[in-house]
Amino acid sequence: MTELASPQPAKAARTQGLVHIIGSGLLGASVGLGLRERGVDVTLEDLSPTTVALAADYGAGRVRTAEDPAPALVVVATPPDVAADAVERALHAFPDAVVTDVTSVKLAPYLELTRRGVDLTNYVGSHPMAGRERGGAIMARADLFTARPWVICRDEATPASALALVEDVALDLGGVLIEMTPEEHDRAVGLVSHLPQVVSSLLAARLVPAAEQAIGLAGAGLRDTTRVAASDPELWMQILDANREPVVELLDAIGADIAAFADALRDPAQPGAKRRIADLLAAGNSGVGRIPGKHGSSERFTTITVLIDDTPGQLGLLLTELGELGINMEDLRLEHSPGAQIGFAEIAVLPEVAERAISDLTGRGWRTL
Amino acid sequence: MTELASPQPAKAARTQGLVHIIGSGLLGASVGLGLRERGVDVTLEDLSPTTVALAADYGAGRVRTAEDPAPALVVVATPPDVAADAVERALHAFPDAVVTDVTSVKLAPYLELTRRGVDLTNYVGSHPMAGRERGGAIMARADLFTARPWVICRDEATPASALALVEDVALDLGGVLIEMTPEEHDRAVGLVSHLPQVVSSLLAARLVPAAEQAIGLAGAGLRDTTRVAASDPELWMQILDANREPVVELLDAIGADIAAFADALRDPAQPGAKRRIADLLAAGNSGVGRIPGKHGSSERFTTITVLIDDTPGQLGLLLTELGELGINMEDLRLEHSPGAQIGFAEIAVLPEVAERAISDLTGRGWRTL
Repeated sequence: MTELASPQPAKAARTQGLVHIIGSGLLGASVGLGLRERGVDVTLEDLSPTTVALAADYGAGRVRTAEDPAPALVVVATPPDVAADAVERALHAFPDAVVTDVTSVKLAPYLELTRRGVDLTNYVGSHPMAGRERGGAIMARADLFTARPWVICRDEATPASALALVEDVALDLGGVLIEMTPEEHDRAVGLVSHLPQVVSSLLAARLVPAAEQAIGLAGAGLRDTTRVAASDPELWMQILDANREPVVELLDAIGADIAAFADALRDPAQPGAKRRIADLLAAGNSGVGRIPGKHGSSERFTTITVLIDDTPGQLGLLLTELGELGINMEDLRLEHSPGAQIGFAEIAVLPEVAERAISDLTGRGWRTL
Repeated sequence: MTELASPQPAKAARTQGLVHIIGSGLLGASVGLGLRERGVDVTLEDLSPTTVALAADYGAGRVRTAEDPAPALVVVATPPDVAADAVERALHAFPDAVVTDVTSVKLAPYLELTRRGVDLTNYVGSHPMAGRERGGAIMARADLFTARPWVICRDEATPASALALVEDVALDLGGVLIEMTPEEHDRAVGLVSHLPQVVSSLLAARLVPAAEQAIGLAGAGLRDTTRVAASDPELWMQILDANREPVVELLDAIGADIAAFADALRDPAQPGAKRRIADLLAAGNSGVGRIPGKHGSSERFTTITVLIDDTPGQLGLLLTELGELGINMEDLRLEHSPGAQIGFAEIAVLPEVAERAISDLTGRGWRTL
């Protein structure tokens, strides 16, 4: 086993003392699993005895009893709509503990707690940018937060020791720390997560009344733009409700853009109509260029397209042969058309090996494009 | 070389007689390359002498001269805004030939030709659902149309022999024939291609003024929803302009959905507000479920997530080992966070091999989630 094959962060185990987790769903159980793996003592609670027992069975910690000592840190991992209540109760129940939460909105719970007059000295809100399409302890994993941004919202009153405790948990779980105010956080996730979710859902909703034959013409563009529309509506109702103001503002803005685009398209004779359409499409080019990740850096690689029969085994065979040929693949994208027996594997390789890759694959009987 | 490794359709070479292609960009040159590969005689023309010479150099056919005999079929592959002109000229220049075009809108050129009183008996509009992110003869490939839907728009006056000629070309190039009226076609592509393009562009355009830190929180959802926003604005201006009515109607409809969603979110106290939000999100679930392809059938497979170090070689190593272990991968999705040294490979396998795959990979030192 090489070091590269096991790229987990060093088991720093910076986290000191007992950690108590309130809420044993996907996030709570994943925090528990990750901390237990690093030797941290973890207790669990949940409104549902079944859920907490399941999380304990999975190894996320032990169910908290009256005999357990007070925790050094409490992690609130409840659904968004009860997060403020849970934080308040935790601050009262464990006056010496630092309390954090992992809710995907940060301002609404903070304002609610402030409105109630709760002393928030020991509270540090946080949000690990991680999740899975399905929730529940059964989907939990120790590495859910590995290499993901983990936003921490401190304020001037936050003691350095409290901040350090929450940062240690985030680092122990492999997160990448990002400090933001609750307002900055909520506007940011509104833009990069909540707006795309709503737009994707509404785009997909337009397919409901469409003719089967029309949907049969769908390509990768439609599949990509609507993928997140498959997410859980109930969870999203809570998230959107808790981040109402930024999301409404963004929806109004994109609604105005859509109306302006439609107007320019509707009446191409009006002065500047073509220019407005061109400017909006070009702004889309610029916007997508700002997104970090493989996407933005795709020019570093050359893409080779290989035809594969759309049956089990073909892709595996291709990848095995790529390995045998010593060709390192940087990225892979599969594409196939409905009803077709043939698919394409688009393989990104370093430019200097592209030519050899094509000739080697062709030599082995693969059809490259 | 096994049959499976070379899954191209049989070289039917149904196409009879000389084929003349007007316009030597991505589509025209790809039609030429595909037909030449099947032994069909192809002549080329283009407004640009450089472009047509390049396409000929790539093997898409020979540049047409005055000595060439009249073609049996003319394929018009010009930009959308000059397609009707090119079809009219071809019908006049070659009165015995069948003329088709591969423009991505079908009603506007048809209506324009009808308005001019052109006899359309020998014209059969078509649209292969294929393309690449970049255009030009230099990007052409013989297999561009393989396994893609190829829409054919006939009308009552179309002779069976003319229809057969166009269908033969589509079949020879590996297309999957779909018959539609121009109206049906334009509404269908408006929904599955043009609307997602505009929405994606406008979503990406919202990122232009955003803070760097906010965009740093971007995940796979934002990347997927904005991928097509990287497309060529000039080409899209022509396409959208030529399919104005359906696109404006769809933009108005999704604009109204966005406004309704924003209103319900803005004022959650109004009667039925939560229900309207839930209904729209649930409709998104239903809509995405209607899209054919891997996407819709993902429940047939179990997904295994493997941690990989985000350096060249790791993914290749993983895939090589998967091959050695005899594990057939049905699909693969790569994910990584900006700034992180660790990525995830999500591998779809048949449910019955998932358990063995996890234990074998773990045994070889991979971390699976």
